[in-house]
Amino acid sequence: MARASVREQIVDAAFEQFHRLGYNACGVKLITDSAGVPKGSFYNHFESKEALALVVMERYGATRRVPALADTAVAPLTRLRDHFEFLASDIEKYGYERGCVFGNFSNEAADHSPAIRDGLVTSFGSWSAAVAGAIREAQADGSVTSQQDPEVLARFLVNAWEGAIVGERAAKDGSSFAAFFTLAFGTVLR
Amino acid sequence: MARASVREQIVDAAFEQFHRLGYNACGVKLITDSAGVPKGSFYNHFESKEALALVVMERYGATRRVPALADTAVAPLTRLRDHFEFLASDIEKYGYERGCVFGNFSNEAADHSPAIRDGLVTSFGSWSAAVAGAIREAQADGSVTSQQDPEVLARFLVNAWEGAIVGERAAKDGSSFAAFFTLAFGTVLR
Repeated sequence: MARASVREQIVDAAFEQFHRLGYNACGVKLITDSAGVPKGSFYNHFESKEALALVVMERYGATRRVPALADTAVAPLTRLRDHFEFLASDIEKYGYERGCVFGNFSNEAADHSPAIRDGLVTSFGSWSAAVAGAIREAQADGSVTSQQDPEVLARFLVNAWEGAIVGERAAKDGSSFAAFFTLAFGTVLR
Repeated sequence: MARASVREQIVDAAFEQFHRLGYNACGVKLITDSAGVPKGSFYNHFESKEALALVVMERYGATRRVPALADTAVAPLTRLRDHFEFLASDIEKYGYERGCVFGNFSNEAADHSPAIRDGLVTSFGSWSAAVAGAIREAQADGSVTSQQDPEVLARFLVNAWEGAIVGERAAKDGSSFAAFFTLAFGTVLR
């Protein structure tokens, strides 16, 4: 099997370390050490840590199963629940550590890097749009009330999910995720 | 007027810099430089950056107007709205930068510092308990439905608020705060 390219090794290591430590605690040397490549090789592949963060953000987005929100083989309200249940399981498997790369970068880097901020606006925007699409279908089939604008509902749910992660990173007891599912599916999407 | 003690100068500077830059981007030297005191003086007053962060977290908590949530001179649902409107104005004044010290520390430091994590559990816990107290009163006077457990509602709202901040730090356009107020007061607290 072909050995992963140096660039791939760097992206894989950065994906892991940005997720585990956040943006600011994770320097170029830590990433190249973790990738097992010389620090000097970094700048052959990336202009900056910021540029690498954009690649990681895009790759992370591709793991969020966003396309499944448009899978018409599944009832739209079920799709919405499956989506957030997948995201929950993905954080529970780390014992409520690491959180969401988007949330972490938003908190740590959006104020200080216009490029990362732009990437986050795109990432949160396409995620919210996919959630809104499923909500719109659920409103059409009557499983969700049509009283609220689907875009506003989606924005609220995506943010409430990000906040549930904030709560779990502190408490690590499942109570914030439980409250999210109770209110999101018992009250907000009704 | 007496000059602020070195300890106070350090706490004031740390409050500002932790809020502005987060936990990891803000080292002891940056704090002492910002305080205008020698770096060597830091360890006369604090065992570690972590110990200082706990002091800052407590001081930040004291600025959140949590006691007003128990002010029976004001209707409980009005108190809840006033509370989140105050928190919103406190972030809008920085152009949606800086966020919430609790949320920032939760994302950046809770996984790696048991002491900060404990502080956050206490901070989020007492904040949620105060929100739950106002919700309980609002349920008693009929302004909020009694169908949901006030503790679960409070946990959800506090987290949804933290998530709205995550959304605003990326978009900085007011849409996440607007979605929070629409859903929190139009649907969740009904």
